[in-house]
Amino acid sequence: MSPENPLKPLNPLEHPRFAEITTFSRLPLKRTFQKNELDVAIVGIPFDGGTTFRPGARFAPRAVRQASVLCRNYSSEHDLNIYEKLRVADAGDVQVNPLNLKKTFSNIERFMAKAHAMGTRVISIGGDHSILLPELRTIRKSYGKPIIIQFDAHTDTADQAWGEPYHHGTPIRRAIEENLIDGADVFQIGIRGPLTSKSQDDYVREQKINILDMNAFEISSKRDAFFSKIMKRAKGRPCFLTFDVDGVDPAFAPGTGTPVVGGLTSREAFQCLRRLSGLKFVGANVVEISPAYDHAELTSLLGAALVFEMLALMAKQ
Amino acid sequence: MSPENPLKPLNPLEHPRFAEITTFSRLPLKRTFQKNELDVAIVGIPFDGGTTFRPGARFAPRAVRQASVLCRNYSSEHDLNIYEKLRVADAGDVQVNPLNLKKTFSNIERFMAKAHAMGTRVISIGGDHSILLPELRTIRKSYGKPIIIQFDAHTDTADQAWGEPYHHGTPIRRAIEENLIDGADVFQIGIRGPLTSKSQDDYVREQKINILDMNAFEISSKRDAFFSKIMKRAKGRPCFLTFDVDGVDPAFAPGTGTPVVGGLTSREAFQCLRRLSGLKFVGANVVEISPAYDHAELTSLLGAALVFEMLALMAKQ
Amino acid sequence: MSPENPLKPLNPLEHPRFAEITTFSRLPLKRTFQKNELDVAIVGIPFDGGTTFRPGARFAPRAVRQASVLCRNYSSEHDLNIYEKLRVADAGDVQVNPLNLKKTFSNIERFMAKAHAMGTRVISIGGDHSILLPELRTIRKSYGKPIIIQFDAHTDTADQAWGEPYHHGTPIRRAIEENLIDGADVFQIGIRGPLTSKSQDDYVREQKINILDMNAFEISSKRDAFFSKIMKRAKGRPCFLTFDVDGVDPAFAPGTGTPVVGGLTSREAFQCLRRLSGLKFVGANVVEISPAYDHAELTSLLGAALVFEMLALMAKQ
Amino acid sequence: MSPENPLKPLNPLEHPRFAEITTFSRLPLKRTFQKNELDVAIVGIPFDGGTTFRPGARFAPRAVRQASVLCRNYSSEHDLNIYEKLRVADAGDVQVNPLNLKKTFSNIERFMAKAHAMGTRVISIGGDHSILLPELRTIRKSYGKPIIIQFDAHTDTADQAWGEPYHHGTPIRRAIEENLIDGADVFQIGIRGPLTSKSQDDYVREQKINILDMNAFEISSKRDAFFSKIMKRAKGRPCFLTFDVDGVDPAFAPGTGTPVVGGLTSREAFQCLRRLSGLKFVGANVVEISPAYDHAELTSLLGAALVFEMLALMAKQ
Amino acid sequence: MSPENPLKPLNPLEHPRFAEITTFSRLPLKRTFQKNELDVAIVGIPFDGGTTFRPGARFAPRAVRQASVLCRNYSSEHDLNIYEKLRVADAGDVQVNPLNLKKTFSNIERFMAKAHAMGTRVISIGGDHSILLPELRTIRKSYGKPIIIQFDAHTDTADQAWGEPYHHGTPIRRAIEENLIDGADVFQIGIRGPLTSKSQDDYVREQKINILDMNAFEISSKRDAFFSKIMKRAKGRPCFLTFDVDGVDPAFAPGTGTPVVGGLTSREAFQCLRRLSGLKFVGANVVEISPAYDHAELTSLLGAALVFEMLALMAKQ
Amino acid sequence: MSPENPLKPLNPLEHPRFAEITTFSRLPLKRTFQKNELDVAIVGIPFDGGTTFRPGARFAPRAVRQASVLCRNYSSEHDLNIYEKLRVADAGDVQVNPLNLKKTFSNIERFMAKAHAMGTRVISIGGDHSILLPELRTIRKSYGKPIIIQFDAHTDTADQAWGEPYHHGTPIRRAIEENLIDGADVFQIGIRGPLTSKSQDDYVREQKINILDMNAFEISSKRDAFFSKIMKRAKGRPCFLTFDVDGVDPAFAPGTGTPVVGGLTSREAFQCLRRLSGLKFVGANVVEISPAYDHAELTSLLGAALVFEMLALMAKQ
Repeated sequence: MSPENPLKPLNPLEHPRFAEITTFSRLPLKRTFQKNELDVAIVGIPFDGGTTFRPGARFAPRAVRQASVLCRNYSSEHDLNIYEKLRVADAGDVQVNPLNLKKTFSNIERFMAKAHAMGTRVISIGGDHSILLPELRTIRKSYGKPIIIQFDAHTDTADQAWGEPYHHGTPIRRAIEENLIDGADVFQIGIRGPLTSKSQDDYVREQKINILDMNAFEISSKRDAFFSKIMKRAKGRPCFLTFDVDGVDPAFAPGTGTPVVGGLTSREAFQCLRRLSGLKFVGANVVEISPAYDHAELTSLLGAALVFEMLALMAKQ
Repeated sequence: MSPENPLKPLNPLEHPRFAEITTFSRLPLKRTFQKNELDVAIVGIPFDGGTTFRPGARFAPRAVRQASVLCRNYSSEHDLNIYEKLRVADAGDVQVNPLNLKKTFSNIERFMAKAHAMGTRVISIGGDHSILLPELRTIRKSYGKPIIIQFDAHTDTADQAWGEPYHHGTPIRRAIEENLIDGADVFQIGIRGPLTSKSQDDYVREQKINILDMNAFEISSKRDAFFSKIMKRAKGRPCFLTFDVDGVDPAFAPGTGTPVVGGLTSREAFQCLRRLSGLKFVGANVVEISPAYDHAELTSLLGAALVFEMLALMAKQ
Repeated sequence: MSPENPLKPLNPLEHPRFAEITTFSRLPLKRTFQKNELDVAIVGIPFDGGTTFRPGARFAPRAVRQASVLCRNYSSEHDLNIYEKLRVADAGDVQVNPLNLKKTFSNIERFMAKAHAMGTRVISIGGDHSILLPELRTIRKSYGKPIIIQFDAHTDTADQAWGEPYHHGTPIRRAIEENLIDGADVFQIGIRGPLTSKSQDDYVREQKINILDMNAFEISSKRDAFFSKIMKRAKGRPCFLTFDVDGVDPAFAPGTGTPVVGGLTSREAFQCLRRLSGLKFVGANVVEISPAYDHAELTSLLGAALVFEMLALMAKQ
Repeated sequence: MSPENPLKPLNPLEHPRFAEITTFSRLPLKRTFQKNELDVAIVGIPFDGGTTFRPGARFAPRAVRQASVLCRNYSSEHDLNIYEKLRVADAGDVQVNPLNLKKTFSNIERFMAKAHAMGTRVISIGGDHSILLPELRTIRKSYGKPIIIQFDAHTDTADQAWGEPYHHGTPIRRAIEENLIDGADVFQIGIRGPLTSKSQDDYVREQKINILDMNAFEISSKRDAFFSKIMKRAKGRPCFLTFDVDGVDPAFAPGTGTPVVGGLTSREAFQCLRRLSGLKFVGANVVEISPAYDHAELTSLLGAALVFEMLALMAKQ
Repeated sequence: MSPENPLKPLNPLEHPRFAEITTFSRLPLKRTFQKNELDVAIVGIPFDGGTTFRPGARFAPRAVRQASVLCRNYSSEHDLNIYEKLRVADAGDVQVNPLNLKKTFSNIERFMAKAHAMGTRVISIGGDHSILLPELRTIRKSYGKPIIIQFDAHTDTADQAWGEPYHHGTPIRRAIEENLIDGADVFQIGIRGPLTSKSQDDYVREQKINILDMNAFEISSKRDAFFSKIMKRAKGRPCFLTFDVDGVDPAFAPGTGTPVVGGLTSREAFQCLRRLSGLKFVGANVVEISPAYDHAELTSLLGAALVFEMLALMAKQ
Repeated sequence: MSPENPLKPLNPLEHPRFAEITTFSRLPLKRTFQKNELDVAIVGIPFDGGTTFRPGARFAPRAVRQASVLCRNYSSEHDLNIYEKLRVADAGDVQVNPLNLKKTFSNIERFMAKAHAMGTRVISIGGDHSILLPELRTIRKSYGKPIIIQFDAHTDTADQAWGEPYHHGTPIRRAIEENLIDGADVFQIGIRGPLTSKSQDDYVREQKINILDMNAFEISSKRDAFFSKIMKRAKGRPCFLTFDVDGVDPAFAPGTGTPVVGGLTSREAFQCLRRLSGLKFVGANVVEISPAYDHAELTSLLGAALVFEMLALMAKQ
């Protein structure tokens, strides 16, 4: 990429970080883009119509963009300047229909397909976790069955609720049923909390989903084994990273829809992410930030930092 | 009603107001009730699937019940003890489906129909304003076309949004279209704020909906004329009172989904309500309280006080 | 008073208002004072052991002092500079016992008696409204039976709660019973809200307590008559002003223990206070500020402004 | 203006109001513009380096833009669609230097001069009130001495603080001293609260500044006389409207830097603004919104609605 | 227990978690119960009259019930479904007298004694820590001297405050003095923070109270030794678990009365609790949650999860 | 020091912690002091004019004093009663000029020099981090070049911003340039987060500043080596401790100006501080607490506890 790359954050020494219209990390806004123009598009998906408890994730893209004005360019851990490696822009928001989950899913699929067709990977800021399903539909078409690396307090393998198959507790199950992913390719970190019944785990076991729950997480050998398994299985395959902020403890991420005490610290989450360096990420999302429950932007700052780490992982490949 | 009426609030001198399980005004909970057992049932409708901006009204029934522990029994203004006039209970919540508006509407209709069949009027705590439509469907069946007295910042006569006919901006239009009410029987107080376009008002004019907007409200002669018209037209007819808390100014009701500055004060709202004394209210609701945006229970306290006033109006008949 | 009066607020042009240790209006702190040294002492009474709903008024003296750094010296309405007319200091807090109402009452009485003996009037920042009783005990001894001018949502004439005669709902009744005041000398403004039963008003009527409730308040002739009666009856007699911030609407005073919607605006409260100009105030208090429920210091700012007005009324005599 | 005007808010029926990058009222962003391209530019001035109490107004442009997504197009009161009358865009933020007031003032002057040269009027979102001075410098050059209509709790005629002549308490005095305006052309509404000393008013009286303080405001004849005087004096002359949100009561505008209890209600503020219809406004600003102290966007919603009213006043001419 | 056990949480697939009247974990409410009807009763004790700093724990039972709607049934860690092992109900609140600690203590003792007589263990949600004393009085009578396992930042062995022997800083000392427990049977985890004087520790040493303070906690060998000692000493004896949420760091439990920085994480607390598996718990409480200081229900969610763990420990026996 | 030392905190058993005027730890206020009268003066520096993002640290001294009422006297970790070892008072606030950084710097220097001349060390409560520079100027003059131990998320070695050399991102660089300190004597803990560019680190490397960033911090051998190096290098030399609360994770310190996720826990910070025992601290500060963004006093409580630890370190020498 030539040095005259215009796709970089607004210079804070010209425009203070609190100033100006807020796009993600103050990057240029490109609602549309050409073939090979962008390596990565950051897009908001302000949809929370799949929420079963506290709604409000529709305001997350706006809140994360706002917090992201504190993001910078160079990652010491990865020793790279993201915007020297990747052409990134904020692509605005996917057109959602807050009253219609299916139409919103179609719009997400259409946006993703277009981006992929342009050679552009997508990092999306949800929205609730239901948006994972349409994303995986497109990922499957564009890249084949991906490895799923999921940070979450919940497995998201419920069958349905009140007769509805599509909501934020079901995307992994639906994705397996739609043959978009294989259970054995799913790696979940941060799982915890009581279940409605023991049988709730049956599906996870049947599908051979890999889980590093918070009890296992405490034991470094289990942690190491889990990440080794990921690295081995994911090698050379397309990977998708999905980060539900409730994987992190509510002390670090209070602004979320279904909080579960006893989760990861932010630092642990970052350490985990950095262990994934070298994988081929074809997409990623941060979901379930509910700003009305946030305080001092804690959760949005975390969300913005996670997107930055995702960019670093993509730049690293 | 005999003095041994058990349908009265828990005695605060036995159980302090901050104690115990919270039902509305600490009344007995009666999830089911017999023919002629109750005059009025207070019911929650925790549904916000029709919201187009800030969601969260699903938490309103819980929040209003919580604030209602400060409600009492005797209204000085009306000189009556509600629970000596009316047998009232908290009927719990209508079973909602947060992911399915139509099923929720059916459940509301079924609940309302059952209550009416038992000779019980219903005051509901929403929920967003979309719940008005199924309520009116049942009101129409049980009592005929009602007079609608609506406090609101918005006329709720939009046609649709994103192709969806049912949401919190459309119940009045849909109700007219479904022949549940007549436009000329609708009286709206508190309307204000810019419109998307002038033509947005066409429907209101065509349907002869009566509006006391905030500009007219300032002029006492207009206010008097408006209420005279209500009293005249409503005489002997079934009336339905629907109170969207955004009719009140956000300083008094910050916890709402679509706030508009420049609204009624709480006091003005109460004065308006008391002018309606003598009408035959066959139902009422309080909608659009969004507790995540509330502070110090301001909006929930208002909601609870409004339900109390509705009870007083029903007791007065 | 000589121009070299050292009893004045810290100069904001030397020490910005956000700086320095916070006493009331940044006045000197005088924990003890001599005969004729002070005209008025501002004292905190951080006691909330008489609260029946939301506690927390123990933090009010601190919060009001903090908000009072925005207070100034000259009242345009009264055309006087308070600190040119009165020698005022912050006397710190009365020693309270948060676990023992009676000992706290003794301490309050002892403090008040000492201050009166020094020729110093006291304006206290509560605390809950129960502190009024010990204050009136001392007022009665030092000055005789006072006229009571009370801003409040509640009449505070309850008999007892859970067998306890002393709490924030009973000071007026206890004071009448202890022959500290006469019911006909009590003037209450802002009363509103439902009662537990109609008989709750019996005592008020029997004792001939004067009430300007919110319904009467709307009618200017009633308002005028009420204040005329005060001025006539209070002429030449010692007056005590007690301001429960729940007399004001919760939109203006959210940080309070037993909020009731539909109260006075701040402006109306100030207008009422200014109508009392010329009366001989021998003491005053501001009570029931509960800072944990406040926002952006709204209620504390009101409390500080009320103390300022009380000083102006005392300076005016 | 032709019907194909592209300068209008994003269509909420395509992009819900909670979605997308937030410019003022979701208008197009035009950081630069040509001669006669825009009638009005909305610009943020995120500078709070002139604040003497609570800082934070630097975050106001962002917060007001965010709240402005609820703004619409057609004003019923003025019976006009703003964007059919005016070509308006969001011009981003003036480049501020948070550490250097003078450089920031230069940048403001440069931006304003450029806009005026393009035939474009400017409505700015502050920032603290110190930004008024550089704005008036440019207004004076471009349009001559303007009439100033100021909503404020404070007269902003202080001389200096801690030896500094430029801060948010001095712009009116400095503007008179720099011969940018005449005191007799200044009209202030909402003034209230104690002063440091009586002499603080001397300058106001000497300069013949017109003040409708909150006491006068209560009396409708004084209010009428004040507005008559404005209309008479302002006829045919350039007018500048400066709205410090602390003119409004903190219950309606908690998020501000120097709150004073007892101010205007939002409704009164709007009524006042509508009385100014027909004047020739050559510029306007909304200042002193401090979002860290706001709740549920109350103050930002007010700020956005005020900008909308300013646009309506400009469209009306 | 037969499969038709009606004592289980409301089904969230019928009634969403945000809906309906809130009892603990949406269990049936049983204000009274028969001999052998319940294994465990959850009861609120909304009393904060023993608080020496921030009051408000009286609102904790309500807040914890509200947060507990997210609780579920099956514990993976213990591999058991609580409601298949235990018959549990919400027993409402103990009748408290907010103005009278002694009468409240009597009521607590009476309630506990009755429950014990019915063969029902009690888990209580305080309230401040002073409620531990009356609970231990009854435990002692019903079960003999218990082992105390206490999570807390403070030892609660103060002598008195302001001459008052009963408050939230003294229950352990009073319990030893009343011969309800032995110091050597007390195990405290999470103790930290400066003391008023070194001698404050004398009593702890004299009574041989076992303390794992935060410095010792960092060292895994000390942690292991401490828990070994508990398991050894507690074997076969009745145990009582008392969890003061200030044992946890304020980042995880901001809503508390006397916060001390540097405490346990939620995860560490859960790990500690799970080490107690197998002990015979005859009672437990969670105390010192002060909801007015909470954010996004962090502390209440923790409180609810702690009650769930307590149930699991009881089910495990 | 004689036992009758009057320089100790107010007795909480006489005056409850929530009562009375708040100085740091309720110590006596001594705005001026004599030669050898005080060992340590705690002083506020309420200046935030060097802030580049969220302002508001000007309110930190007040907020930390308020939280410090929970501080006590005896440190178990260090086994010492601070006020038996040190004569400490609250010296009020340095006179700041919120509009003029240079004059404020002069005032800080003047205050520090005077204190040093009296034989008094200073612990200051900022303010933003820019105040470190004038402090170091005086430290250098009074004690020679100090060792700097800095907790921070940022290195504070930026060159300038918007042409301004003095702000909260530059004090370490300016101090090196002014020859007040040597880079190799600077030890920074908690550094993390992306940089604007890789070259941003050049200065740090050139100056040989010692950094224990969050990645290194995870590895105990690196942590040990870092502290060994400090102890070795600092032996016998004057040390200055500067604690920017953003060194701690925003979950533990939300109330700060430039939060960076992934920082130290409070406990880790205290452990680090206790490793410094024995060093000769000639001064210290706590900076960057921004109370408007705090919740439940989390950050202020941390700030107060840090000052207590600093006192303990000074008492230990």
